[in-house]
Amino acid sequence: MSQKKMLLVVCDGLSDRPVKQFDMKTPIQLARKPAMDALARHGVSGMMDVIGPGVIPGSDTAHLALFGFDPYKVYTGRGPIEAAGAGIELKPGDVAFRCNFATANKNLVVTDRRAGRIKAGTADLAKSLTGMKIDGVEVIFKEGSEHRGVLVLRGDDLDYRVSDVDPHQDGKILESRALVPGAKKTADALNIFVKRSAEVLSDHPVNRERVKNHLPPANIILPRGAGSTKDLQPLSERYGIKCAAVAGVTLVKGICRMVGMDVPNVPGATGGLDTDYKAKAEAAIRLLDSNDFVFVNVKAGDIASHDGDFRMKVGVVENIDMMLGLILKDIHEDVVLALTCDHSTPVSVKEHSADPVPLAISGGGARVDGVREFDEVSAASGALGRMRGMDLMPVMLGMADRAKKFGA
Amino acid sequence: MSQKKMLLVVCDGLSDRPVKQFDMKTPIQLARKPAMDALARHGVSGMMDVIGPGVIPGSDTAHLALFGFDPYKVYTGRGPIEAAGAGIELKPGDVAFRCNFATANKNLVVTDRRAGRIKAGTADLAKSLTGMKIDGVEVIFKEGSEHRGVLVLRGDDLDYRVSDVDPHQDGKILESRALVPGAKKTADALNIFVKRSAEVLSDHPVNRERVKNHLPPANIILPRGAGSTKDLQPLSERYGIKCAAVAGVTLVKGICRMVGMDVPNVPGATGGLDTDYKAKAEAAIRLLDSNDFVFVNVKAGDIASHDGDFRMKVGVVENIDMMLGLILKDIHEDVVLALTCDHSTPVSVKEHSADPVPLAISGGGARVDGVREFDEVSAASGALGRMRGMDLMPVMLGMADRAKKFGA
Repeated sequence: MSQKKMLLVVCDGLSDRPVKQFDMKTPIQLARKPAMDALARHGVSGMMDVIGPGVIPGSDTAHLALFGFDPYKVYTGRGPIEAAGAGIELKPGDVAFRCNFATANKNLVVTDRRAGRIKAGTADLAKSLTGMKIDGVEVIFKEGSEHRGVLVLRGDDLDYRVSDVDPHQDGKILESRALVPGAKKTADALNIFVKRSAEVLSDHPVNRERVKNHLPPANIILPRGAGSTKDLQPLSERYGIKCAAVAGVTLVKGICRMVGMDVPNVPGATGGLDTDYKAKAEAAIRLLDSNDFVFVNVKAGDIASHDGDFRMKVGVVENIDMMLGLILKDIHEDVVLALTCDHSTPVSVKEHSADPVPLAISGGGARVDGVREFDEVSAASGALGRMRGMDLMPVMLGMADRAKKFGA
Repeated sequence: MSQKKMLLVVCDGLSDRPVKQFDMKTPIQLARKPAMDALARHGVSGMMDVIGPGVIPGSDTAHLALFGFDPYKVYTGRGPIEAAGAGIELKPGDVAFRCNFATANKNLVVTDRRAGRIKAGTADLAKSLTGMKIDGVEVIFKEGSEHRGVLVLRGDDLDYRVSDVDPHQDGKILESRALVPGAKKTADALNIFVKRSAEVLSDHPVNRERVKNHLPPANIILPRGAGSTKDLQPLSERYGIKCAAVAGVTLVKGICRMVGMDVPNVPGATGGLDTDYKAKAEAAIRLLDSNDFVFVNVKAGDIASHDGDFRMKVGVVENIDMMLGLILKDIHEDVVLALTCDHSTPVSVKEHSADPVPLAISGGGARVDGVREFDEVSAASGALGRMRGMDLMPVMLGMADRAKKFGA
């Protein structure tokens, strides 16, 4: 049997709960979605607990599970994923943090956690911080999108189990504490870095210019989400497949890079509501030529949910359906094509929830189970039953005739 | 999103198998049960392996699983649960046993394991045993309902891994043996206790009176089900919820107390076929005012099953339905309400069985899956799929927006 190609489309937070004002329907149930329904009709459906029953997945832990890793074993914190997303190559022992450029007064009281959502100049600010040395610990700092940045501490005997400096709201910055006895050196270096960042940034030309223009200066760095990279076996080794990803969000890109995927830049794939769905479809089809497994993430559903906007979310479903239609029209029927979500983000909750997500797989060795629609209820009557996110890759590999035999 | 309240109704042993003489229906399927069906129609259904596929749950292990604990990790034996039910506060290291007051002859051959189902006088008999000292081991003994009692051995270096003295049928009492090398001291103390109990009880006024009245004397204690208390994290800590229970049976009350629930006395809630269903409904509704999670256990279905009485069991279903109707009428639609069983007790078997049990959940974030009836077959087509008992609490917490996020 020849091995088949695989395509996984993850609709970030698209899964939802029924809403009373909309006749107890979910946005997916109310949307027109001929492509999604065709996929369900020609394949096999099921429900998925991405992490486990009753566990609310983060986007980071969810994607690790969807790529076949046990997040309880490999996930330490968000820092390393952001670092990978920013293109920093972490070494074993490095401790990485997500950071905000923020505005604080002279007493280190934060007055704006996002420094007025600063857009320009952060690359210059980052350059003034990176390369710093603190008691033998090397500092690597890189700007991210808008007010975001990544800090990496590199040196001997560091430990990621330290508390955040970021107060997560306006107010005095926190002193990082060691959460285990061996992490004191890391907490100390982190506290010194934050204070030095305030000294270095306060007088930086970018900030002098901002103050002149009555904009809040980006005069302090607030680190949080410490983590160390765990040795994630690349998917090429783990499953013997060449992989590529189409994603707009830095976090998702970071995870894809950490598991060894090629993540080319797709112009127009923004990770926002304005993302270019057609460009994403075309990139996916193109990447499938030279890869065994292509992963596509669409963030827009999650964004509409965080805004609590049911009608906007229906629109997102229909946009994704259009993208899926373009893909379905162009790919070979042998391609194992899976459609699912990384977690539910009900518009009624405006946050991730623990509700399981729908899953449909067609093509390759997928069975056909008679489910005729793709949504949170129809999928539950499918032949896949209720499964865990960690099992998705093995199941897809099985349908693509790429699974391994155990025994004789 | 505001956190919602939760109510769990467990119908002890109500789940059953199809019976030929009743058109291959189960008692639940044949009963009139408008409230149960309404719950299923407005919510989401599924099947549950309370412990695991093909495992026959005890009422004790089942309830531990339903409260979110892995019974394979926390359950050592029934003794500690009976002790908690009897109001004895166990200390770490204590070994507790379920006991019967029994009748034996001079050669310690048991002739009646229940001493004629003795009803009066056991409190006096217990008083003559408790406080005894055996080689530095302290004896605590308390009577239970009818012929039942609880023995606790307290002292250094005790171990619950000892075999039963109770022969479980008429005949010579057994010598307790150490099942691990370190348990010899416990087995020795237990054997001495049983022999002393025979000496002390034989001449007790209660027994002299019984013999005069031609009743079998309660002249020996038969311990079984040794166990040590494991540190069960209270649900208030584990899930951050304030909990209360409505239950009539000592065993179930014991488990509820062990996991930190408030278990108020509900007059009329007997744990028998004559239990006051209306009083239970009213207590549940009242407790929901001041608690986050209320648990209701109804024992009657299990009793009808042990008698193998199909028609009586249909009557029990209809009584529970009446109780559920009173609850449904009074609670807010936001309350996450789950209805299930702790195990199946088929009338054709008259004992617990390994068959999975139906589950329906409505309210809060529960989806609506189109299942229209609550029974062992309809529930299986529901969107919850097949789940484990241990996952019920996390799933309910998720629907009540009380779950924790893993990751970012």
